Amino acid sequence: MKIAVLAGDGIGPEVTREAVRVLEALRLPGMVLFEGDVGGAAYKRHGHPLPAETLELVRTCDAILFGAVGDPDCDNLERHLRPEQAILGLRKEMGLFANLRPAKLFKGLEDASALRPEVASAIDLLIVRELNGDVYFGEKGMRTLPDGRRQGWDMMAYAEDEVRRIAHVGFKAAMGRARRLCSVDKANVLETSQLWRDVVIEVAREYPEVELSHMYVDNAAMQLVRNPGQFDVVVTGNLFGDILSDQASMCVGSIGLLASASLSQGTLGLYEPIHGSAPDIAGQGKANPLATILSAAMLLRHSLHLDAEASRIEAAVAKALADGVRGGDLGGTMGTAAIGDAVLERLT
Amino acid sequence: MKIAVLAGDGIGPEVTREAVRVLEALRLPGMVLFEGDVGGAAYKRHGHPLPAETLELVRTCDAILFGAVGDPDCDNLERHLRPEQAILGLRKEMGLFANLRPAKLFKGLEDASALRPEVASAIDLLIVRELNGDVYFGEKGMRTLPDGRRQGWDMMAYAEDEVRRIAHVGFKAAMGRARRLCSVDKANVLETSQLWRDVVIEVAREYPEVELSHMYVDNAAMQLVRNPGQFDVVVTGNLFGDILSDQASMCVGSIGLLASASLSQGTLGLYEPIHGSAPDIAGQGKANPLATILSAAMLLRHSLHLDAEASRIEAAVAKALADGVRGGDLGGTMGTAAIGDAVLERLT
Ligand SMILES: CC(C)[C@H](C(=O)O)[C@@H](O)C(=O)O
Ligand SMILES: CC(C)[C@H](C(=O)O)[C@@H](O)C(=O)O
Repeated sequence: MKIAVLAGDGIGPEVTREAVRVLEALRLPGMVLFEGDVGGAAYKRHGHPLPAETLELVRTCDAILFGAVGDPDCDNLERHLRPEQAILGLRKEMGLFANLRPAKLFKGLEDASALRPEVASAIDLLIVRELNGDVYFGEKGMRTLPDGRRQGWDMMAYAEDEVRRIAHVGFKAAMGRARRLCSVDKANVLETSQLWRDVVIEVAREYPEVELSHMYVDNAAMQLVRNPGQFDVVVTGNLFGDILSDQASMCVGSIGLLASASLSQGTLGLYEPIHGSAPDIAGQGKANPLATILSAAMLLRHSLHLDAEASRIEAAVAKALADGVRGGDLGGTMGTAAIGDAVLERLT
Repeated sequence: MKIAVLAGDGIGPEVTREAVRVLEALRLPGMVLFEGDVGGAAYKRHGHPLPAETLELVRTCDAILFGAVGDPDCDNLERHLRPEQAILGLRKEMGLFANLRPAKLFKGLEDASALRPEVASAIDLLIVRELNGDVYFGEKGMRTLPDGRRQGWDMMAYAEDEVRRIAHVGFKAAMGRARRLCSVDKANVLETSQLWRDVVIEVAREYPEVELSHMYVDNAAMQLVRNPGQFDVVVTGNLFGDILSDQASMCVGSIGLLASASLSQGTLGLYEPIHGSAPDIAGQGKANPLATILSAAMLLRHSLHLDAEASRIEAAVAKALADGVRGGDLGGTMGTAAIGDAVLERLT
């Protein structure tokens, strides 16, 4: 069981440290952790945000625990050298096409959400976001039009097999939950979405027990505020998934609580908090490590099939929150290490 | 003062009727209304969702009052014949490139929003959405790749002049408000967004009094839930604007309250509620006409420069809501005509 730990930039190293402490506390036989450089930190050391050494390390591992990338020092670099390219590169190179982002309100946090408590407490959804296609990975560039105007352009596209494999992930996830799948697209405007919808409908025939619905992305963004409790599993493309999953995260109180898994066809997965590198609070020991700790739990469940251990971590986090453990993101005063300690103490 | 009234599909005719009653009650000298067909209704009568007759009518008018388009009977038509093409076609043909969508909580509706009252009551923002470009109007299609797979594709693009003119609208709007402009893009992934950001920064030099910020769209979707009170004017592209403005609308309680203006370089404008045709409740006299009535107020202000009359309508709507006038969308029982009556009674 080899795990690559890529802490990255900003608060990445601090929050990852706590997740590693939690993993180590489980004393799992045969689990070995290896550190690698990624993001702005890797650029500064190796001249590239995703150095060959890191890719090699990752290829020999069963799972990746990822912190965060993003560094204001790198804002003016060419696009292919910016820290974000590390995570985009890992997703694409390692075929991590299925991003799972669960959102559920923890007990005790009814008052932390910007939504009314009765709206927020009904949230228990899973966003399944496609990660290897869409306008993220199409051709793109800047050009000068014949009449001399500058134009920026990006190709949005999905091919049927790309949609089919993420649709299967969505339907399978729904089978393990409340058996409702909502596919989000913009088929009234986009051909990419029309193909998406056609293929999702085809795949649905293999899952007669799942109730499938379709929603336009503008309506979905609205419904996620109005009544997020209506959703079970949401499946959507890379761009819409980026927007909707960040939005959903805020409905449960703090982006500091949301974990994610990015899975390949095999067992390799990358696990990361959905928050960013938060350079404004980096190095101050203020960041909430719970999202990264919960990402480590997802790692145990999805890549190592250690369900019981994953549940132990999740229970400890839930207990800590129920007991009033709060970082600055939730109006509390506890720092990164203290929150990590609180979880460790409750790890039975 | 010629106004084209395009009521369209579903609840479009019912809500438009109330807005027309309000306009007529003002007895504006020289104001003449002309009806035209649009959407699924126009397809059924003329074989096209935006018939030549309607385009001709619109070309001779100073403003367009628009209801809604969208008809489930037309779902299986080819894309260019679907009802939505009517609104997309009008925006493009008439050069309606600047969509203004104000969102502000009405007094008395503090408890109607899914957001906590203290979060919702701070909302007072204007979304400025570009309407003539982006992935909406690029080339698009379905194709079979050399290896036989079907692919749907859409070209996303912005040219510098398209960004420049909408940026000016955003900065000018900010000058008339709290002088803060937030430009929303996805420049960490999209070249279209990189150009967008570069041009917005150029244009900013002409508005030194406006405080400009940039936000990625995923973060913006999150911030609109977490703390929507932080925004004054938001300027963004067509696709992101579609998503964020629907999301923002829900923060103020009901999509049945949100008006919009789509402006050209001249005085011609199209005014429509941001809700859709709601086929499920069409023809039942249940729809909330306030968004359309408020759109008529925007029409008076922006296309006819009748500020005082616009304010009269807005005051009457605010008074009705403060007095407890509520349709089904806000948990009340009043029907479309009764809500229209309530506004008319308060029109001083
Ligand atoms: C950093 C950025 C490229 C990334 C994305 O847009 O996918 C992030 O927002 C995320 O959601 O993981
Ligand atoms: C009907 C649809 C094409 C339209 C859009 O996406 O622009 C609508 O959602 C809107 O926002 O006016």
